Amino acid sequence: MNDVISAAWGEATQTVQEIQRRICAAASRLEADAQFVVDDWESPGANGAIKGRGSTRVIAGGSVFEKGGVNTSVASGTKLPPSLVAQRPELEGCGFVVAGVSVVIHPLNPYAPTAHCNYRYFEARTAEGQTAAWWFGGGADLTPYYPLLEDVRHFHDAQRRACDKHDPAFYPAFKAWCDEYFYLKHRKETRGVGGIFYDYLDSGGFGESANRTPFALPKSFSELLAFSSDAAQAFVDGYFPLVERHAHEPYGQREREFQLLRRGRYVEFNLIYDRGTIFGLQSGGRVESILMSLPALVRWAYDERPEPGSREAELASYLVPRDWFATDPFAS
Amino acid sequence: MNDVISAAWGEATQTVQEIQRRICAAASRLEADAQFVVDDWESPGANGAIKGRGSTRVIAGGSVFEKGGVNTSVASGTKLPPSLVAQRPELEGCGFVVAGVSVVIHPLNPYAPTAHCNYRYFEARTAEGQTAAWWFGGGADLTPYYPLLEDVRHFHDAQRRACDKHDPAFYPAFKAWCDEYFYLKHRKETRGVGGIFYDYLDSGGFGESANRTPFALPKSFSELLAFSSDAAQAFVDGYFPLVERHAHEPYGQREREFQLLRRGRYVEFNLIYDRGTIFGLQSGGRVESILMSLPALVRWAYDERPEPGSREAELASYLVPRDWFATDPFAS
Repeated sequence: MNDVISAAWGEATQTVQEIQRRICAAASRLEADAQFVVDDWESPGANGAIKGRGSTRVIAGGSVFEKGGVNTSVASGTKLPPSLVAQRPELEGCGFVVAGVSVVIHPLNPYAPTAHCNYRYFEARTAEGQTAAWWFGGGADLTPYYPLLEDVRHFHDAQRRACDKHDPAFYPAFKAWCDEYFYLKHRKETRGVGGIFYDYLDSGGFGESANRTPFALPKSFSELLAFSSDAAQAFVDGYFPLVERHAHEPYGQREREFQLLRRGRYVEFNLIYDRGTIFGLQSGGRVESILMSLPALVRWAYDERPEPGSREAELASYLVPRDWFATDPFAS
Repeated sequence: MNDVISAAWGEATQTVQEIQRRICAAASRLEADAQFVVDDWESPGANGAIKGRGSTRVIAGGSVFEKGGVNTSVASGTKLPPSLVAQRPELEGCGFVVAGVSVVIHPLNPYAPTAHCNYRYFEARTAEGQTAAWWFGGGADLTPYYPLLEDVRHFHDAQRRACDKHDPAFYPAFKAWCDEYFYLKHRKETRGVGGIFYDYLDSGGFGESANRTPFALPKSFSELLAFSSDAAQAFVDGYFPLVERHAHEPYGQREREFQLLRRGRYVEFNLIYDRGTIFGLQSGGRVESILMSLPALVRWAYDERPEPGSREAELASYLVPRDWFATDPFAS
């Protein structure tokens, strides 16, 4: 009873599959030396594993993309994971169904940024199969190694346009939320230059139970599904042109080593803080699909810091929340 | 008042420093191409950072040791971290002092195993500076890439002898605890072939409040400090001969790539599960010293599995808790 396909879940499933196709197509257009390998999976949900199916699409060893994954997952569970109940205590005891797509792209060239996005539809269901709540979550963020302000603005501008099309409150709120979410507390720096992040977006507003922003006018499921789709298109338009611009720039061992070191911070974020990773591992998700977000090659060195004044040292000033559209974002 | 040097804390500090010297000396004897770099630090404890001092000793880029760290830390805090209070709820509201040494060694040669050990003395103190509880914690574990049963037995035998010298109950209990602790739930495998792990070892017994094994006869602080020292010597005797045996064996790209992939599991354990890492990050510890445990170079690949029957596939049968001294440990 808990995993009957509702109209909403069915539509959301189609949308995340369509997003997957669009993102894989955009990436494939840039890559001559590798192809996405498709790994369709289905899990009956035994032994604590999640029940569902998905399509994991991985590209690796390319001349443009060192490793990238574009995964859909359509799954159900009889128990919400603790990390979610902590934010929505009123849903204790519910099961859930979810349809989501999750994307992480690690280009080979250190001048090309890493990027991530994900979009998901979620329904909490009572033991009798009634929908207790539904919402959308998602976002996109950019993690450059050698950042350029114009690139950062290009990425954010695409997200901002997609947001503004649906609600002027979205971009400022979701941009701030992204800066807060993708933050490595122990390193006192953001994961990258941000983007947008949102969760618990339903007809009445967005945000956790304890910290919720209501809409002036209610929004429909269809409108919010269209927003997910537009935000995903903004990822395609905002990110892949940056890859195209930088993927073939000459670089040396110095840039490669800096990239590998910085990827260590990406791993630290994903394994220590990332809600999606923790949710996935807690709810018996498919380990290989969850951890496809980790880069192909990573380096850790003791207390290695860029030389003051170097190009590598510049990155630090980008890892602080800023208004990228200000005349001089670095003024304060 | 909270960080007055007690006789016990002072003695424990001397012991962890002595252990550091012994381990660095043993490693240095095997390495011709790199030296330990000493980074002594002191922190006044401002801005949520831990108050204390320590000596971080790192060896990197050697022909035998790709990366290794041997760190002491002598620190105090006004508040026990949540992860510890969860196990010892009666100590809520206490501060603490600690003296510890923590060691992780990643040899370059894939045939030489990675190893870890740590030994610490801990005092929980009331706001008035009274000792509310004290205990020892520690352990050592071995993580081979291409395991040999005789190596595993050599490592365990050294630990077993050190344990048996102090209490016949130690080795069986601490061996089982190690297997339980160094377990990657999401991978359904142990981190390596184990060793020993113990915590909350005080005059009356060992184990968390809820799950405690009392001693038949009480032990003194001095005896337990001597046990820490003997266990550390067992690490030296049990581990470095294995490095010596394998550090110069010929290997190729295949072995190197398998080693880098398996190191990914090491990173996953340390960032997702390790109590010491979580304690350190939660209590404002020195990030670079805590994360020196991470390997120099690590690889992640989507769903890469060793060919059945290969030398690499053999590892899996070692990543299950076993009695290594049984006639055939793999019989069941």
